[in-house]
Amino acid sequence: MSGDTTSRWVIGLADADGQDVGLLGGKGAGLASMARAGFPVPPGFVITTDTCRAYYARDKLFPEGLWTETLAAVEVIERETQKTLGGSSDPLLFSVRSGAAVSMPGMMDTVLNLGLNPASVEALSKLTNNPYFAWETYRRFVQMFGEVVFGAPADRLASATARQQASDGALTVSGEQQLVERLEKIILGHARRPLPHDPEEQLQLAISAVFDSWMNRRAIDYRRLNGIPNDIYTAVTVQTMVFGNAGEDSGTGVAFTRDPTTGEQHMYGEYLPNAQGEDVVAGIRTPLSLDHMADRMSAAHGQLVEIAGRLETHYRDMQDIEFTVERGRLWMLQTRAGKRSARSSVRIAVEMAEAGLISRQEAVTRVTPDRLNELLHRVVKPSPEDVVLASGLAASPGGAAGTVVFDADEAQQLAEEGHRVVMVRRETSPEDFHGLVAAEAIVTSRGGVTSHAAVVARGMGKCCVVGCEAIEVDYAQQLFTVGSHVISKGDWVTVDGSTGEVFLGEVDTVEPELDDHYARLMTWADEFRTLRVRANADTPEDATAARAMGAEGIGLCRTEHMFFVEGRIEAMRAMIMAPNAVSRAEALADLEPHQVADFEGIFEAMDGLPVTIRLLDPPLHEFLPRPDETLLRITNLKLRLRDATDLNDIDQLLEEINVLENVLDRIERLSESNPMLGHRGCRLGIAYPEITEMQARAIFTAALHCAERGISVIPEVMIPLVAFTSEFDSQAAIVRDAATRVFEEHGISLDYTVGTMIELPRAALIADEIAASAEFFSFGTNDLTQSTVGLSRDDAGRFLPGYIQRGLITADPFQTLDRVGVGQLVEIGVERGRRARPDLKLGVCGEHAGDADSIEFFHQTGLDYVSCSPFRVPVARLAAAHAAIATED
Amino acid sequence: MSGDTTSRWVIGLADADGQDVGLLGGKGAGLASMARAGFPVPPGFVITTDTCRAYYARDKLFPEGLWTETLAAVEVIERETQKTLGGSSDPLLFSVRSGAAVSMPGMMDTVLNLGLNPASVEALSKLTNNPYFAWETYRRFVQMFGEVVFGAPADRLASATARQQASDGALTVSGEQQLVERLEKIILGHARRPLPHDPEEQLQLAISAVFDSWMNRRAIDYRRLNGIPNDIYTAVTVQTMVFGNAGEDSGTGVAFTRDPTTGEQHMYGEYLPNAQGEDVVAGIRTPLSLDHMADRMSAAHGQLVEIAGRLETHYRDMQDIEFTVERGRLWMLQTRAGKRSARSSVRIAVEMAEAGLISRQEAVTRVTPDRLNELLHRVVKPSPEDVVLASGLAASPGGAAGTVVFDADEAQQLAEEGHRVVMVRRETSPEDFHGLVAAEAIVTSRGGVTSHAAVVARGMGKCCVVGCEAIEVDYAQQLFTVGSHVISKGDWVTVDGSTGEVFLGEVDTVEPELDDHYARLMTWADEFRTLRVRANADTPEDATAARAMGAEGIGLCRTEHMFFVEGRIEAMRAMIMAPNAVSRAEALADLEPHQVADFEGIFEAMDGLPVTIRLLDPPLHEFLPRPDETLLRITNLKLRLRDATDLNDIDQLLEEINVLENVLDRIERLSESNPMLGHRGCRLGIAYPEITEMQARAIFTAALHCAERGISVIPEVMIPLVAFTSEFDSQAAIVRDAATRVFEEHGISLDYTVGTMIELPRAALIADEIAASAEFFSFGTNDLTQSTVGLSRDDAGRFLPGYIQRGLITADPFQTLDRVGVGQLVEIGVERGRRARPDLKLGVCGEHAGDADSIEFFHQTGLDYVSCSPFRVPVARLAAAHAAIATED
Repeated sequence: MSGDTTSRWVIGLADADGQDVGLLGGKGAGLASMARAGFPVPPGFVITTDTCRAYYARDKLFPEGLWTETLAAVEVIERETQKTLGGSSDPLLFSVRSGAAVSMPGMMDTVLNLGLNPASVEALSKLTNNPYFAWETYRRFVQMFGEVVFGAPADRLASATARQQASDGALTVSGEQQLVERLEKIILGHARRPLPHDPEEQLQLAISAVFDSWMNRRAIDYRRLNGIPNDIYTAVTVQTMVFGNAGEDSGTGVAFTRDPTTGEQHMYGEYLPNAQGEDVVAGIRTPLSLDHMADRMSAAHGQLVEIAGRLETHYRDMQDIEFTVERGRLWMLQTRAGKRSARSSVRIAVEMAEAGLISRQEAVTRVTPDRLNELLHRVVKPSPEDVVLASGLAASPGGAAGTVVFDADEAQQLAEEGHRVVMVRRETSPEDFHGLVAAEAIVTSRGGVTSHAAVVARGMGKCCVVGCEAIEVDYAQQLFTVGSHVISKGDWVTVDGSTGEVFLGEVDTVEPELDDHYARLMTWADEFRTLRVRANADTPEDATAARAMGAEGIGLCRTEHMFFVEGRIEAMRAMIMAPNAVSRAEALADLEPHQVADFEGIFEAMDGLPVTIRLLDPPLHEFLPRPDETLLRITNLKLRLRDATDLNDIDQLLEEINVLENVLDRIERLSESNPMLGHRGCRLGIAYPEITEMQARAIFTAALHCAERGISVIPEVMIPLVAFTSEFDSQAAIVRDAATRVFEEHGISLDYTVGTMIELPRAALIADEIAASAEFFSFGTNDLTQSTVGLSRDDAGRFLPGYIQRGLITADPFQTLDRVGVGQLVEIGVERGRRARPDLKLGVCGEHAGDADSIEFFHQTGLDYVSCSPFRVPVARLAAAHAAIATED
Repeated sequence: MSGDTTSRWVIGLADADGQDVGLLGGKGAGLASMARAGFPVPPGFVITTDTCRAYYARDKLFPEGLWTETLAAVEVIERETQKTLGGSSDPLLFSVRSGAAVSMPGMMDTVLNLGLNPASVEALSKLTNNPYFAWETYRRFVQMFGEVVFGAPADRLASATARQQASDGALTVSGEQQLVERLEKIILGHARRPLPHDPEEQLQLAISAVFDSWMNRRAIDYRRLNGIPNDIYTAVTVQTMVFGNAGEDSGTGVAFTRDPTTGEQHMYGEYLPNAQGEDVVAGIRTPLSLDHMADRMSAAHGQLVEIAGRLETHYRDMQDIEFTVERGRLWMLQTRAGKRSARSSVRIAVEMAEAGLISRQEAVTRVTPDRLNELLHRVVKPSPEDVVLASGLAASPGGAAGTVVFDADEAQQLAEEGHRVVMVRRETSPEDFHGLVAAEAIVTSRGGVTSHAAVVARGMGKCCVVGCEAIEVDYAQQLFTVGSHVISKGDWVTVDGSTGEVFLGEVDTVEPELDDHYARLMTWADEFRTLRVRANADTPEDATAARAMGAEGIGLCRTEHMFFVEGRIEAMRAMIMAPNAVSRAEALADLEPHQVADFEGIFEAMDGLPVTIRLLDPPLHEFLPRPDETLLRITNLKLRLRDATDLNDIDQLLEEINVLENVLDRIERLSESNPMLGHRGCRLGIAYPEITEMQARAIFTAALHCAERGISVIPEVMIPLVAFTSEFDSQAAIVRDAATRVFEEHGISLDYTVGTMIELPRAALIADEIAASAEFFSFGTNDLTQSTVGLSRDDAGRFLPGYIQRGLITADPFQTLDRVGVGQLVEIGVERGRRARPDLKLGVCGEHAGDADSIEFFHQTGLDYVSCSPFRVPVARLAAAHAAIATED
């Protein structure tokens, strides 16, 4: 790739292999393809990415042979076009553009109209019989060259131009001439050298400038953010300028071969007569539709339509085309895969597959799983006037507007009265559950994308923004401030959970719609994937929603969420406050019928599909009221006591105070330094076996009730947070005993399995031991990430973003599975578990189960299923298909 | 081992192989050895442990052949003794005793004087010419047989005896006769069958009863608690009774071949004339010294001394001997290794090695490492009247008394005034550090053996009891209650950190002393061990103490402890409160000279030895005041503000309130849900690189100061809580840059290394990656246990004891390394780390570094050193020697 094969530095567009994007860059490869296919491409050549690499290897010197080859290539073009670089009769002008293998829009430099100087501008003037066009073009060149090549301050150049244009000299030849003089003076003052008039010197400097722009701050940052390697380098495309601004028979435009919004199969684009491409991009003039072009220059339009069709067939994808018409002649300036909406992306993929242009596999891989969110959730459509109050982490997609409320009870009440509310809190806790249910959207000022608010919101498909640090919530005054804005209870805000933005007031949102193309694509995806997709669902409603989204079972039913409902939390608290096992058993007996009813509803919704029910997991203090609120209530009661005179009142108040003080005492006793590592999961069931027994009874009672009604029930009972095999064995024994007893009572039985979460490193390491008695594993990758990386998901929000910003890690390990660390433990767990029990069923129920990159890993690791939030199910189905197709390749 | 070799059920003592403890049980083997060696052992036989196993396998039926063999063995003894079982002239009486391979004192059953009935008791009466002796012996038999074999209620039998003895009939023949009648009636009433008078039936039932007692509740519990397997079973020793109570020429006693308290080489024991062994054990009569026996029955005494010497030579260990003299004739009843004090254990081992009786290796393994604590720490010597207030976890050994204090400042003040104080708290935090330094002992009502209080106390060699759940601390009233006791500030308590007991008032304690035998034993231990032993020490004083204990360097110097000292904590807080990097740098500059001075002192104390300094580790909020205290101070200031009238006062108060409110705000912002998994360790240095830089500068400045004074400095800089290689690289770069700059400033340089803690599962899993740039690893097994097992050491105290009690785990994983889980990660870390860097230095600095069982594992895993609290260093040295010797075998 170096000096020995000299032809590698410079390749003429017509001679280049358009497939070799790595060598030619995206732009060069596109042009070369078009040139080879015989499309009208302005003559030009590509200086390859290898050349750029060699340039940096030589400490920014041209590699040997480059300049000679460049001059030779120029000569070829001069011959072909019959024009001469810097010529005084018919001058050849060049565009000099960057172009890496991966698109980095606007990050690197470009020089247009290269070749102009006092001599050639006169020639151009005469030739076009349009002195203003010639001098304006020259002025554009001077401004651009000065800025890009000599690094002259852009603002000074721009303001000089603006001043001139504002004065009388605007849009006149002499005005442009004066401006050129002024700009050249600024450039000289800055660069301490005059702008070269020798076109070859111009070219040499422009090529260097484009190379140099590969390593400018902006480009480096962009690559880091987008995971683009530094060592792919940029190519430089040098191409004959064509002029869309050469008169009324000229113009320029962009066209999509299909509608990028709807995906409909017709050419869609914009056209600007008598203009250069920059004018379209800059938005100075309002472009016309392509119909207008068809009317005014039907030949060129016809040719464009024909070429567009051929390009699409050639590239097997919708194309985004730039073109120019110079004095009636069509020139193709660029073609590339067009960006499109999610809806369009689905439709184009499906229609191309049905037309036989691409395979169904390819159609499936054409749609990025995460983009399905745009189809599944309401989308915020802000207008330019809408004010973004704050930006946080996009925790759960969708858009919604409502009045601000800070309290869960109030949220519920307002929602019942028909109001749309947005719940805003510093953070949320399980106590706020009913408020989250009632709210249209949730905003928290703290927490990361796996904080309580985020997890619950995703579970409900409700839009949510978390970690919105700029927001200062003041509960006492029932308002929040952000910068100079003060938003009080009752004020309207709009939340965009897909971007993380919170808007002031009510902003437009658009309803999602799922069309037939979506249905077809998902059917294909389901055919290709081997990984099953289940949902995490805690209520019959969630289960129904999940099934509608295509869930093939429930992989995680969190029984504790059932306890937070009004009327049950009281029984739960009585259970926790129970002074002994007897009163605990009584409180549990109150809860049992509720659990049975919930389980019945869930089993019914999942008729024929497996349902994994996790036994009680969170630390008990989560079910008690907040300590500060309890303290406040006690204080208030004491104030009332001070003023009370009636003896009955006094007795009553004393009694209430006593009860609350007991609660406070229990809260204090249950409080933990690190609850995540504390008394939770199966550790609860071991301390209070009666809880496990009650839950198991409820599961099997509900299952038998359903079975008696002809519903096919496949219960899987899951023991959480197992670290020691003995823990699993002891809990599993209680579950199996309860099953036996319930079956005996009913006189019938059914199949069920007992398994465990693998969510601690120790459990993964002893997976073989555990699998000796556990019938399935579900990897709880949230907790496994916390413990493996030693990172609290509730607290990491404060410093993890800094890690990503500094490049210490590439992704939030709570969003995208850390394959190296956590993934290694998953692999160990899978391997050892299967070794001990070859038919062990393996799934994952952490947040990662809805993340495309992580799903690829889970597929490769050989899991049987992933289980994610209901509204992530389609994303997971598609991602699983991608993973399966990628493995086949 | 069953019916085919019939001789396996029953073996005569004279024919048995005394080495086969597994088959004969400890007691049987000891007797057989003595019998074989020709010592006077009453004739008898052993029913083997195999027999007991077969008995249980046959659902508690005698295995085939057992009874025939037993009768044959009885016949042999009848021939030898010329006595007859149940005989009416010279009756043969038996003792029937249990005896497993492992001693389980008092857990199983025994029947004595078997063979007596109305006929043989008359014969015995005539033969001894002592009817009272005969009838008393018969009554003892009836009482024991009824209780042990027929399960008659012991209290009813005992109270019948007591009533009778209290009445006139006591100590008369007729009294004993009436008592036998009454006891037989009680037994009949309970068992619904009469006590058998047939001696063979008695024997058969007694053998069954001893077998059955293997599975009684008490024995099962004892085995579980002591880790003794259930399937080793018990043997039954049937032996001719000899009577120390046969007159004034008879007696019974126990003797140790050396002094069990001091280890001095002379026989030591007790003797009771005209008595049975039970009387010695029961403590009814005060025994005499063996000198008394030498005077009264010099022949028997001389024989005993001679036998004792031979036994010690035979068993190569100090023996605990039971003997009886029956009418002038010495009989040996039992020999076993004698229990002894730690001091005695050291002296005996050393003297036996020096006498050539055992090897030096054996001498070293004879002393249990943990028992060195008795030599190293003050010991509490309670008298029977002393009241144990509460028992908690023995967190740090030693004993101390003092007046109770609840506040660190007060503890410090009282200590400065010369008072001895015991600090009592619910739990402690780094803020209490100066109080812990000042206190004689520490008691907490919460927390486990690796809680803050426990770790700090062990570091200082200060006695400490934690998790004393019975204690209810009331800070407001400055008292604690436990049961009905109320202990107020200023009351005396005594703390035994070796047993976990807290006594009311001042209890005697004894000063430890280290003698020459200890020094010799430790020298040998150091010769055998290959694992190096360092200490965790944070101050020059700790370092000096550690070196005196034999530490070969510092494996963990926690720099944060330096910040808690008065005068520094203010600068630390200023650093945390700093609004920007500039004022943070200023506050750090204030801290730097203190760090330099501390490091100099430590380097000096460790001249020539390596010192591992860990960079700042705890979350920053630990350095701020407690939120509740701050709130209280604000409230008080506000109250004063209300009453203030002077404008200057008002300004001043407002300013103070403002400062404290800022502190409170920062506390709230820094507070974390799970601080253990939060913003700490190297995560701090990444957010605030200036902290790392300041610490590194201080380390290298101090090192050069020392080097200039001729001190040999070996600094090892340790980055804590690394999860990602990028974290290590980024921090190591700051450290290395600082070193280069400090070296340049001083114009000299020295060798140093930069390494990391491996304390997260992820770090162990990517050890190869980390070792590419880290020069040493120190396994932080406290945190590694927390994260691997998902267990907070501060919270686990609430439920881990229940786990151990229920047999779910055998040991607290924070005390004894969990080899299966955490150990596996250590092995992975060692293997991958060494693969990437063969000369990687590997150590461990968690609490496990002072635990003997864990040290064995660390030796096997191939670590270079362990680093423990200074006062555990001797324990670790000895344990390391044990591990090395065990590996050689």
